[in-house]
Amino acid sequence: VGVPSPDLRGREEILRVHAKIVKLGPEVDFKVIARRTPGFVGADLANLVNEAALLAARRNKPYVELPELEEAIERVIAGPERKNHMITEREKKIVAYHESGHALVAKLTPGTDPVHKVSIIPRGPALGYTLQLPTEDRFLTSRTELKSKLYVLLGGRAAEELVFKEMTTGACNDLEKSTGLAQKMVCEFGMSDKLGPMTFRKKEEEVFLGRDINRGTTFSNETGQMIDAEVKQLIMDGMAYVRKLLSDNRSKLDRLAEKLMEKEILDSDEVDSLIREGGPAVA
Amino acid sequence: VGVPSPDLRGREEILRVHAKIVKLGPEVDFKVIARRTPGFVGADLANLVNEAALLAARRNKPYVELPELEEAIERVIAGPERKNHMITEREKKIVAYHESGHALVAKLTPGTDPVHKVSIIPRGPALGYTLQLPTEDRFLTSRTELKSKLYVLLGGRAAEELVFKEMTTGACNDLEKSTGLAQKMVCEFGMSDKLGPMTFRKKEEEVFLGRDINRGTTFSNETGQMIDAEVKQLIMDGMAYVRKLLSDNRSKLDRLAEKLMEKEILDSDEVDSLIREGGPAVA
Amino acid sequence: VGVPSPDLRGREEILRVHAKIVKLGPEVDFKVIARRTPGFVGADLANLVNEAALLAARRNKPYVELPELEEAIERVIAGPERKNHMITEREKKIVAYHESGHALVAKLTPGTDPVHKVSIIPRGPALGYTLQLPTEDRFLTSRTELKSKLYVLLGGRAAEELVFKEMTTGACNDLEKSTGLAQKMVCEFGMSDKLGPMTFRKKEEEVFLGRDINRGTTFSNETGQMIDAEVKQLIMDGMAYVRKLLSDNRSKLDRLAEKLMEKEILDSDEVDSLIREGGPAVA
Amino acid sequence: VGVPSPDLRGREEILRVHAKIVKLGPEVDFKVIARRTPGFVGADLANLVNEAALLAARRNKPYVELPELEEAIERVIAGPERKNHMITEREKKIVAYHESGHALVAKLTPGTDPVHKVSIIPRGPALGYTLQLPTEDRFLTSRTELKSKLYVLLGGRAAEELVFKEMTTGACNDLEKSTGLAQKMVCEFGMSDKLGPMTFRKKEEEVFLGRDINRGTTFSNETGQMIDAEVKQLIMDGMAYVRKLLSDNRSKLDRLAEKLMEKEILDSDEVDSLIREGGPAVA
Amino acid sequence: VGVPSPDLRGREEILRVHAKIVKLGPEVDFKVIARRTPGFVGADLANLVNEAALLAARRNKPYVELPELEEAIERVIAGPERKNHMITEREKKIVAYHESGHALVAKLTPGTDPVHKVSIIPRGPALGYTLQLPTEDRFLTSRTELKSKLYVLLGGRAAEELVFKEMTTGACNDLEKSTGLAQKMVCEFGMSDKLGPMTFRKKEEEVFLGRDINRGTTFSNETGQMIDAEVKQLIMDGMAYVRKLLSDNRSKLDRLAEKLMEKEILDSDEVDSLIREGGPAVA
Amino acid sequence: VGVPSPDLRGREEILRVHAKIVKLGPEVDFKVIARRTPGFVGADLANLVNEAALLAARRNKPYVELPELEEAIERVIAGPERKNHMITEREKKIVAYHESGHALVAKLTPGTDPVHKVSIIPRGPALGYTLQLPTEDRFLTSRTELKSKLYVLLGGRAAEELVFKEMTTGACNDLEKSTGLAQKMVCEFGMSDKLGPMTFRKKEEEVFLGRDINRGTTFSNETGQMIDAEVKQLIMDGMAYVRKLLSDNRSKLDRLAEKLMEKEILDSDEVDSLIREGGPAVA
Repeated sequence: VGVPSPDLRGREEILRVHAKIVKLGPEVDFKVIARRTPGFVGADLANLVNEAALLAARRNKPYVELPELEEAIERVIAGPERKNHMITEREKKIVAYHESGHALVAKLTPGTDPVHKVSIIPRGPALGYTLQLPTEDRFLTSRTELKSKLYVLLGGRAAEELVFKEMTTGACNDLEKSTGLAQKMVCEFGMSDKLGPMTFRKKEEEVFLGRDINRGTTFSNETGQMIDAEVKQLIMDGMAYVRKLLSDNRSKLDRLAEKLMEKEILDSDEVDSLIREGGPAVA
Repeated sequence: VGVPSPDLRGREEILRVHAKIVKLGPEVDFKVIARRTPGFVGADLANLVNEAALLAARRNKPYVELPELEEAIERVIAGPERKNHMITEREKKIVAYHESGHALVAKLTPGTDPVHKVSIIPRGPALGYTLQLPTEDRFLTSRTELKSKLYVLLGGRAAEELVFKEMTTGACNDLEKSTGLAQKMVCEFGMSDKLGPMTFRKKEEEVFLGRDINRGTTFSNETGQMIDAEVKQLIMDGMAYVRKLLSDNRSKLDRLAEKLMEKEILDSDEVDSLIREGGPAVA
Repeated sequence: VGVPSPDLRGREEILRVHAKIVKLGPEVDFKVIARRTPGFVGADLANLVNEAALLAARRNKPYVELPELEEAIERVIAGPERKNHMITEREKKIVAYHESGHALVAKLTPGTDPVHKVSIIPRGPALGYTLQLPTEDRFLTSRTELKSKLYVLLGGRAAEELVFKEMTTGACNDLEKSTGLAQKMVCEFGMSDKLGPMTFRKKEEEVFLGRDINRGTTFSNETGQMIDAEVKQLIMDGMAYVRKLLSDNRSKLDRLAEKLMEKEILDSDEVDSLIREGGPAVA
Repeated sequence: VGVPSPDLRGREEILRVHAKIVKLGPEVDFKVIARRTPGFVGADLANLVNEAALLAARRNKPYVELPELEEAIERVIAGPERKNHMITEREKKIVAYHESGHALVAKLTPGTDPVHKVSIIPRGPALGYTLQLPTEDRFLTSRTELKSKLYVLLGGRAAEELVFKEMTTGACNDLEKSTGLAQKMVCEFGMSDKLGPMTFRKKEEEVFLGRDINRGTTFSNETGQMIDAEVKQLIMDGMAYVRKLLSDNRSKLDRLAEKLMEKEILDSDEVDSLIREGGPAVA
Repeated sequence: VGVPSPDLRGREEILRVHAKIVKLGPEVDFKVIARRTPGFVGADLANLVNEAALLAARRNKPYVELPELEEAIERVIAGPERKNHMITEREKKIVAYHESGHALVAKLTPGTDPVHKVSIIPRGPALGYTLQLPTEDRFLTSRTELKSKLYVLLGGRAAEELVFKEMTTGACNDLEKSTGLAQKMVCEFGMSDKLGPMTFRKKEEEVFLGRDINRGTTFSNETGQMIDAEVKQLIMDGMAYVRKLLSDNRSKLDRLAEKLMEKEILDSDEVDSLIREGGPAVA
Repeated sequence: VGVPSPDLRGREEILRVHAKIVKLGPEVDFKVIARRTPGFVGADLANLVNEAALLAARRNKPYVELPELEEAIERVIAGPERKNHMITEREKKIVAYHESGHALVAKLTPGTDPVHKVSIIPRGPALGYTLQLPTEDRFLTSRTELKSKLYVLLGGRAAEELVFKEMTTGACNDLEKSTGLAQKMVCEFGMSDKLGPMTFRKKEEEVFLGRDINRGTTFSNETGQMIDAEVKQLIMDGMAYVRKLLSDNRSKLDRLAEKLMEKEILDSDEVDSLIREGGPAVA
């Protein structure tokens, strides 16, 4: 399992080490940053401090302050913002509904990480993104939580289908992630009732120079069929759940997407108030 | 997903950078060139400027002007023209119908990129080509648009079959592209209703020195069968659509092919007026 | 089969050799340490002495004493303790039941190695662990004993399911081990009645520089199916046994888990007295 | 698709370049040679000039003349003649019928390249050969023409079977070529009605140093079965056609083979007149 | 087939060569040693002489005598004795029955090599061993003799099952050998009536630097199934034979195992007399 | 197909070249040697001359004479004689019948190469051998002739079975050859009526440094099944033919084997007269 990623205290210490060579504003509290970066490893945190320093320099600030650190968190997660990237109105609308789909499913499904921000300003290779940050470090994840993760991942494609009766290439990264997650649930976490508490090595492991091993499947084709069926079932059940959830909450989805097209970025409170307007959620 | 290809503004800037060492005519507007080159990456644009400069030198012009830049766009897309390439009259007729098939399907199918030019002067390894240029940068493509792309790709073979009751090797490059596109729709974009919003890694990824991984299929043979069936269905449905479309518009196809045999190159307006002559299109 | 791991006498001698350069407390008896380290090879023992020396230095002791050696045994088996690792109360409870599941199955199943210690202080990559040490060197293991090993491995997941009606990622390392053990029973030890006293090479062997052999399965898919079925049967039978055992002894499990949440570490005697409180075990 | 092979004009120019360092007879016309060498690439043409020069030197000629160039064409296609190669009378008869089979099918099937020469003097690794040269450059080949090519390839084996009620190893090179051609028709040219206008990558592509990719089949076993069946059908249909054609024209076949045993080489006119003697062909 | 192993005369000569640099006792007769080492190749014989010299030195003998050479034969076959290796009484009993099983099957089955010695003193990686030495060089082995070899290999596991109603990991090396032998009978020696006098390459051949060939199975899955079934049949028939033989001769088995636990080593005569006590054998 | 092996005239010339540095007896006629060495390539002939020279030197002859050259032919084909190799009487009898089986099938089956010599003196890795030399160079081989070759290869095993009601490992080299030959008939020579005049690449081709291609089967499992079935049919039909032939000619077989045990070597005339004694052959 290798080295586990650092916990809250560990991240704070690592930030402190990397920040030694950077001038910091008086109000900067590394505890806050550490709390917002669960899952970050040492290299990510070093990167974060570096990006913040560059941003402060670009903004002619005498020292790094909280806004630079927060922007830096997003840069590390999703890449730099591409503000002048021109997409058509039609594409903008699709992206807005896609991201609103992710955000709404996250908000309405218990056991998901809080939505911190939804944006349709392109960042890195993505046309939009929904930033979820866990409130605390997690070391165990339950089957229910993993299913919720699947739902959120599928929310973008489902929203597109619901609103435009059409699907686009925009979801292909989500689909790769959700397929991979469902496969892990079945093959690594032993979470399929049909296959039982067993592991099935499906992915090839890394090989080193001069050690070149041909690892085909290590199970029979029939076991492979059962794995495929269970993975598909997880995805299909998730898609059915998400389609119903978004359809039942269509007005919330519309409000979110419309406001997102208008303001381009929504923070957690804005998302909450837009959802609340439509009455209590039915999850 | 790697680095996304530059957008309109990005292409204009890149063109400007590469053009610094080239003398340009007064009327050259890089905005126009940038608009005609969506999908071009930095290296393509550098190549474009270079080819245009060579053409201007060959034509003894004091500076690069629009015609050189336009010819250079086609060279980058399809290779240099091979004017003195001698093909038989019979082959010329087949090529003319083949390209007219592509062009007519593109003109009559909504959601395809505009036809800029149809040519039966060999260029690069191709005996003819139909130049389609999108009007704007596209970042999302819908299933409908991808199906339309399939139709255009299949139009050449379908026209040959309709007119000559025969098929030739001339379509093999089109078929490779359309098979690959249909596979991507099913395996990467999650656009098959039967297989659902999932990804299936079918293609081998690149491996690096000393890391040599044997990646066979990562799914069972039965899943593979379903993928094969869905890919085939996309192609077969596309072929049925295209056959009917060309058969219903046979006179337009004949007019296009005849004029193409006569003039060898048709621009967008010529194609439009040839199609209009035959009455409104039935798509 | 390579070099067998050293026996009791061998380990004692190896410890003596490595300890020559370390100052030892008067009461240190290598016989005791050797008895607690069956299965350790030379490198493990060298590591043990080294870790003990470092601990003594950190504790400002003039020489290595028994507590350092005992802590060092656990470090070699499971990695260093991570005391300040903060996990949520919910996670702590799951871990406590998970480890109590392992420990209780081990206590109630004849033919398992004695439970030396149960801990929910994270150590190495694990959130908790149950330390079992055999009382003597073992060179032959019977099918019954291997099945008991399977039961203990499955006890953690089974306890989670029983108590929380939920499963987590916390068992994935156990599941990898139990799947691997069941496969060895079928494919290497000839312990499946259906497949008979035969061996089936399923795992790829290591290859050396420049000798790169593609070893796929060396049997037909049908034989592979039978192997998969027998391995699954072993796991499923084990899971059924463990579920019943824990369900029948639910109050013992609760007492163990509660005390573990309170004290974080339980030694063998504490575990025994907690189990005894609930009346004689029904195995 | 790489660089296309040079057309007529291209070949003439290449010949001229290579011939600069060779003394040529006054009557040598490169147009003629270029017309006889469609499909030759630059290296073939360089080889041709070189072989012709060597032959002229061996014949003590002051310069290269047409006979040397013509002999050189055959050398490039089939290797050097092996005049003193002794084969038995029985083998000679089999070879004569085998080559007559190729030649007669080529003569009686429309759409095949003209037969230039039939020989049973061993050349290169072959015991005999039938030289077909296209009359003009071809850039498109129709399904009908490819089927005709199959017929000609199968003519040798079919003639052996018809006459000797026996088959020999002499056809194994023909069979490799015809199997490969039928596979290309199905898998690359999309010419199977059952599999449709699709491509199927069956052949492994070349890999470079340090990039070692395991490319298995990229389709399911069922698709593979369908491909196998379609390829076999093409071969079996071709064999049925050829068997009937040769059987219906048995007397022409006998005349060709007998004359070939007598003269060892027949040119196009001799073949024609031998066929004509037997009345009009029934194709 | 490579170089055949040396015959009796060859071994004697090789021994003489290697023994030149060693001082030998007067009574040493290499003929005797050569007769006891059929199947030894040159390197084995060099090793034998070397081990004997080391033993003589350790025993402070002025020269190598017969006891050292005999001990050296066993060292070369099975590794050095590990006298102080402590195993439990229970394990000792299992090993004693396991080895008695091998020995008794060998004694009661015609066509097996004579049992030279049975030991439960661990040697090399093994906890016990039964030393069989052929009386003469063998160059042909019949199916009957190979089946007898299978029986002897299966005798250990069968004895464990009969006596303890249990199986252990102690037989896994025997099972690997018997599975491999049965596979050779079917795939290399053409000794399966169902598969016939054919060979089936199942094992991967060694590959050399830079030549890395992926050799999968070279036959269809159905043929693989038939091979698996025939191999299993050989093992299962052998196991049935051995179970009956040991069950019918249970008292002999008990006498052998008891005496072995008492004396730890039995020579051929002791084994014979222990078997004879129980009346004539029923094979 | 590479370079064909030299024909009669070619071999004579090659012998002459290599023999230039060797002193030859006056009666040596290279025409004779060339006639006895069809299929030998240049390296074989060089080897032949060299071996003959060494033999002459060992025999203290002033020059190489015919006996040395003849012995050298056998050495090149089968390796050096191993006269002092001791095999048991039983093995000798089996080998005698085995070789007589080969020889008798060869004598009684039309279309096989003449038997030149039968020997049970071990040579190279073989315990005996039957030397067949074709009377002339062959460039075409018919299906009938290949079947006859199969019969001869199977004759050894069949004779063992007939006489001893037993099979031994002695035939495993024959079986590898006959399986390979039957596979070539089906997969390379297109000689299976069921599979038709097609080729199937089954064997992996050599790969070069840095080009490492994974070539699995290039056909579906069902085609593989049909290939396996046809190959097996060829072997089984051959075995049935050979069993009947040897059974019908049992007395001839006995006479051959008995004389062979007595004299150890039989030449062609001796074999003929032994066969003739028993009346005319029934093939």
